Amino acid sequence: MQNFEDLTETFSTIMAPILLNCMGNEHKDYINELVHVNNPNLSTMEEDILYHFSLGTKTHNLPEMFGDIKFVCVGGSANRMKAFAQFIHQELTLPGNADDIQDICEGTDRYCMYKVGPVLSISHGMGVPSISIMLHEMIKLLHHAQCRDVVLFRLGTSGGVGLPAGTVVITDKAVDYSFQAKFEQVVLGKVIIRSTELDEGVSNELLQYSTEIPNLPTVIGNTMCTHDFYEGQGRLDGALCSFSNEEKLEYLREAYEAGVRNIEMESTVFAAMCRVCGLKAAVICVTLLNRFEGDQITSPHDVLVEYQQRPQMLVSYFIKKRLGLIA
Amino acid sequence: MQNFEDLTETFSTIMAPILLNCMGNEHKDYINELVHVNNPNLSTMEEDILYHFSLGTKTHNLPEMFGDIKFVCVGGSANRMKAFAQFIHQELTLPGNADDIQDICEGTDRYCMYKVGPVLSISHGMGVPSISIMLHEMIKLLHHAQCRDVVLFRLGTSGGVGLPAGTVVITDKAVDYSFQAKFEQVVLGKVIIRSTELDEGVSNELLQYSTEIPNLPTVIGNTMCTHDFYEGQGRLDGALCSFSNEEKLEYLREAYEAGVRNIEMESTVFAAMCRVCGLKAAVICVTLLNRFEGDQITSPHDVLVEYQQRPQMLVSYFIKKRLGLIA
Repeated sequence: MQNFEDLTETFSTIMAPILLNCMGNEHKDYINELVHVNNPNLSTMEEDILYHFSLGTKTHNLPEMFGDIKFVCVGGSANRMKAFAQFIHQELTLPGNADDIQDICEGTDRYCMYKVGPVLSISHGMGVPSISIMLHEMIKLLHHAQCRDVVLFRLGTSGGVGLPAGTVVITDKAVDYSFQAKFEQVVLGKVIIRSTELDEGVSNELLQYSTEIPNLPTVIGNTMCTHDFYEGQGRLDGALCSFSNEEKLEYLREAYEAGVRNIEMESTVFAAMCRVCGLKAAVICVTLLNRFEGDQITSPHDVLVEYQQRPQMLVSYFIKKRLGLIA
Repeated sequence: MQNFEDLTETFSTIMAPILLNCMGNEHKDYINELVHVNNPNLSTMEEDILYHFSLGTKTHNLPEMFGDIKFVCVGGSANRMKAFAQFIHQELTLPGNADDIQDICEGTDRYCMYKVGPVLSISHGMGVPSISIMLHEMIKLLHHAQCRDVVLFRLGTSGGVGLPAGTVVITDKAVDYSFQAKFEQVVLGKVIIRSTELDEGVSNELLQYSTEIPNLPTVIGNTMCTHDFYEGQGRLDGALCSFSNEEKLEYLREAYEAGVRNIEMESTVFAAMCRVCGLKAAVICVTLLNRFEGDQITSPHDVLVEYQQRPQMLVSYFIKKRLGLIA
C-alpha cells in the first residue's frame, strides 16, 4: 500500500481543503448545529432525488416529515431495524400501535426506514459500499429536513475476538485490516484517507449506562472493519481458503494485541462519513461467537435473537436518558 | 497502491499455489465438471451452516433441493430477482402458478432465493462485500448439491458511460477504479490480486442473441466496479463532494477511453470468485442514465422497470437456447 505521507500529498494537492479538516484531532461541539453536508452543489440543485430511499425534495416535504429527528439508528438487517422501531415505540410509550409503523421507503427494496417520534431506524444492508450509499442519502435527508443536534448509532452484529458470545462492544476506534484507524476512499480514481475517530463522549456515556442495565456484558474496544466475511476475517469455512488454522489464529492474536475486540463490515465508513459531516456517532455491536473458538455461527435462533436485542436495549436507555424519561 | 509485481511477490510467497492459477489466461473448458470449492477444510467439516441463506448440510438435503441447477442468476434487488424468477417460470412454461414461488431463504432477510426448474435466482444486495458473502455461500451450496455444468449471470443496473439510458452492456472486462482488470482481496491482512476475466464464449453468445431480440440495444464493453455510488463514481450530488464538474467529466472521459461503458458495484469480485472456482460467468447490466449527462436517476418508474427487464430477456433467451426451447 502507498504510505500515509504519499497519500496525504496526493490528497492535499488534488482535493479541496474541506476534506483535510477531517484528519484533525480537535473535538468540536456540534450541539445546536444544523446537520451540514460537505457539498456546495446541493444548494444549487432544483431537486434532489434520494434514489435509494425513493424520496425527493420535490415529491416529499422533508422538513415536515423529518425535522424533529434527534436520533438515527442504523443496522444491517431490515427485519431487525423494524423490530427496533417497534421496541423504541414501546419504550418511549408513544401513542398508537407499534405494529402499525410504516416503512417510509416502501417504494424501494434497497433499504427500509421507520420513524418513531424523534428516532429514525434505517437498515443499511451488508458491507461498506451498501452502508455508504445509505449514509450519503441519510445525511442529505437530515440536511434537507433542517435537523439539529442529531446523534447517530450503528447497532450491529459482529464476530468477537477473545470475548464470549453475547458481549456488547462499544467501538473505541474503527480500524481497517491492518488495525489502523483510517478509511480509504477512492475519489475520481485517487485514494484518499479519512479518520475513523468516533465521539468519545457518546461512547463513554453508553459504557456508563451499560453498568446500569442488568445482564448486559459490555466492553469498549477497537472494531475491525473488513470488506468480506470469509477470507478477510480469516474464516476457514468459505468457498475459498488458502491459509491454515494456525495462520488464522496468529492474525486474530495480532488483532487482539492491537486492541481489536470485534470484527464487522461497516464501522470505518460510518465513522469516517459522520466525522466529515460533524455528526456525533457511536458503534454498538453484539458478538455472535468468539472467533478464537470457531467460524460458524451455531447458536440457536432464539439465543441469537436475544443477543441482537442487547445493543437495542443500550441505545434505547441512552435515548430515554437524553429525553429525560429516566432520571 | 503497491504495484502489481510487489503484490505478486507477496502473493506467491505467502499464499497457496492454488490461488496463482487464477491469474493465467488459459481458457479451460469446464463442461461436465462438478462445481468445486478451493477449500480443503470443507470436506472435513461435520456440518456446514450457510448462515446468510439460513440453510445447512444437516438441516437440508441440498443435492435433492438443488442438484439439477444449471443456471444461477443473481442481482442486487430482492424484488427484481423475484420478478425474474416469475418471468423465467413463464418463459420455460413450467407447471404451477408463477405467483406461488417461495423464497427458499425465508428464514433470513439477508438474501432471497427462488428455484424455478434448473434456474436459481438470488439477490445479493449492493456492493462487493454483500455479493461476496452470497457468492461464498452459493458456491458452497452448488458444491454440496453436486451441481454440474453451471453457468452464472449477474443481471444488474448501472450508470452508462457515453451510452443512452436503456442500453444493455455485456461485460468484456470487469475493471477497478484505475481501469485495470483486477480485484484486490485482503486475506489475513495481506492484499492479493485476482484476475477478473470473464468467459468470452458466454459473452459472445449473449451478444449474438441480443441481435435476435427486437428492441434490445446491446453492446459489449468494460464495466467499472466501484466501492461506492457517489464519490467513487464521480457523482456531484452526494453528501460529500470535493471536485468540480470538469474534473468529473475528465475522469469519465478517461474511463471511456479505457473501454469502460458502464459503472456498477459488484462485477470485479463476481468475476474473480467465479474464475477461481472454475465457473463460467457473465455480467449483463442495463444503463439507467448516461453519466456524461447527469448523476441523478430521473426517468419515470415505469421506464426504469422496463429497462430492468432487458437483461432478464437476454438471459432468458440464452437459457431457452441452451435448453433447446428455441431452435
